[in-house]
Amino acid sequence: MVTFLAGGTGTPKLLAGADDVFSPAATAVVANTGDDIELGGHLVCPDLDTVLFLDGDVLDRETWWGIADDTAETHAELTRLADAAGLDGGPRYLPEDAQTAGRDIARWRRFSGVAEFMHIGDRDRAVHVTRTSLLDEGGSLTEVTRTLADAFGLDRTLLPMSDDPVASIIHTPSGPMHFQEWWVGHNGEPAVEDVAFRGSEAASATDAVLTALDDTVVIGPSNPVTSLGPMLALDDIEQALRETPVVAVSPFIEDTVFSGPAADLMAGVGLEPSTAGVAEAYPFADAFVLDDDDSTPLDVPVVRTDTTLDDATDAERVNRAVETALSEVA
Amino acid sequence: MVTFLAGGTGTPKLLAGADDVFSPAATAVVANTGDDIELGGHLVCPDLDTVLFLDGDVLDRETWWGIADDTAETHAELTRLADAAGLDGGPRYLPEDAQTAGRDIARWRRFSGVAEFMHIGDRDRAVHVTRTSLLDEGGSLTEVTRTLADAFGLDRTLLPMSDDPVASIIHTPSGPMHFQEWWVGHNGEPAVEDVAFRGSEAASATDAVLTALDDTVVIGPSNPVTSLGPMLALDDIEQALRETPVVAVSPFIEDTVFSGPAADLMAGVGLEPSTAGVAEAYPFADAFVLDDDDSTPLDVPVVRTDTTLDDATDAERVNRAVETALSEVA
Repeated sequence: MVTFLAGGTGTPKLLAGADDVFSPAATAVVANTGDDIELGGHLVCPDLDTVLFLDGDVLDRETWWGIADDTAETHAELTRLADAAGLDGGPRYLPEDAQTAGRDIARWRRFSGVAEFMHIGDRDRAVHVTRTSLLDEGGSLTEVTRTLADAFGLDRTLLPMSDDPVASIIHTPSGPMHFQEWWVGHNGEPAVEDVAFRGSEAASATDAVLTALDDTVVIGPSNPVTSLGPMLALDDIEQALRETPVVAVSPFIEDTVFSGPAADLMAGVGLEPSTAGVAEAYPFADAFVLDDDDSTPLDVPVVRTDTTLDDATDAERVNRAVETALSEVA
Repeated sequence: MVTFLAGGTGTPKLLAGADDVFSPAATAVVANTGDDIELGGHLVCPDLDTVLFLDGDVLDRETWWGIADDTAETHAELTRLADAAGLDGGPRYLPEDAQTAGRDIARWRRFSGVAEFMHIGDRDRAVHVTRTSLLDEGGSLTEVTRTLADAFGLDRTLLPMSDDPVASIIHTPSGPMHFQEWWVGHNGEPAVEDVAFRGSEAASATDAVLTALDDTVVIGPSNPVTSLGPMLALDDIEQALRETPVVAVSPFIEDTVFSGPAADLMAGVGLEPSTAGVAEAYPFADAFVLDDDDSTPLDVPVVRTDTTLDDATDAERVNRAVETALSEVA
């Protein structure tokens, strides 16, 4: 049994070529929920959904979010209605008193759906409606995710990191804002001064996650701040990682990042935006997989390969390197 | 100035041919909200929306609800997901504690969106998302409706009857259920034993509605129980109607109803399902428009015409009859 920690696109790209190395039926994926938001009344869980759609074989592999060939009729009409009524596009963060009203799981990240600042496809939207409705019927996010995994025919076990609310908040010179407001709403600007995980002190991992973390753990090339950070901010997850073999794949080649906002976010929280900084962020890691061109000196075992992840062949190669690294530390 | 009371499809069909008789800019429409439900987290207001779409020139004139040529990708995927996960189709009324959680306006009529028992088109859905989001931003239903009316370019003034929650509950041998569960979910079965308007004792009409009811009032051929009943259940509306000239168009020819569940509902609340029963439901009416073939004796002035409403020409003819009736009583 092996457990992947997933957030953003890095770990999903690794999972896309994992099947022949790590049997899906013996693999769990724990997904970050700090990036989740409630948008127009529906809980949107981007990191859970990328795995859901990947393993359900419907993922849009151009963007690594959303459903391939999805339409966006509702999204377009939301924009049209807002334009026609002279409403500002947003992101429109709901008033403070609304942030703690309604569903607990959506605290501190509730946005109006007016003009919908994130692009939600029509079939994609059905996932958010179903998820939110099952939560309103009384299910936990873990239970609801299991139902959605059934609907998409997943072989891997997909688990949200927690059933409690945790919100990734980016502190900037313009004030704090939710990660999605900063990343999707403002294209990763303004500058990052700090990152906080609101709710993480009171939140705990689920029993299912803690059980999954008894197995060996793989951290894919996700960004350590907002993709992995919310998980690491939960004391029980951080402790579990210290007690089990962990192999991490660097999202950098030395100080060059493959994609996404990892470098800005790492600099913002005082980590060097490099493989060395990633190693500092993961003090519990027992081995690393680095790119052939990455000669960062680390004080744990390193397996090197070409860590490019452009397709399933790439991903299988990197999974083999992960397997080798695990064999050295398990 | 003239004010129409609208619910279901009867009054909208009349409005469809009203423009040359009653100037849209000098016309207000007060819409029933007892039929509204929260579905999958969004407030759906069928009677407001039929007028919104009619006057916005996008109404599906086959069904008299929804937007013409709308797609339904999300709706189809909701059904697929529920089927694939083995979830029951519903209607899935949320647990009792959820009925009074969240937005006040949605009390006692909150349904899960799993498998979505009402057909919601993709562009239609954008209206519900925008409405719900504007409510969450702090707007009243009256304010939010004005914004949507702006977006659809309405010339008439469209007003919800109240900014308070009122839920039309059908009592049956199988227990009480919301009107939409009975009508859409169970095709107007089982038998109607009574109809109640939950919340109506605490609810009041808005100031905008009371101002509109200072003008002469037209009640189209809507069903008096669930289309008009919620309005009449509000003391301040009922009193306003007693104090202003009111002309009503019967939805019956003697005891034959044109369409919809009016007859079953009237019988269920002890009214004769006929024009005579309608007159009993509207004791404040100062005149009636009846079909040429309807010889029901009434003790107020009657104007007769062909009350068929198949197209705009029909509707204009009936509006002329309404105008004549108003001239006799105003």
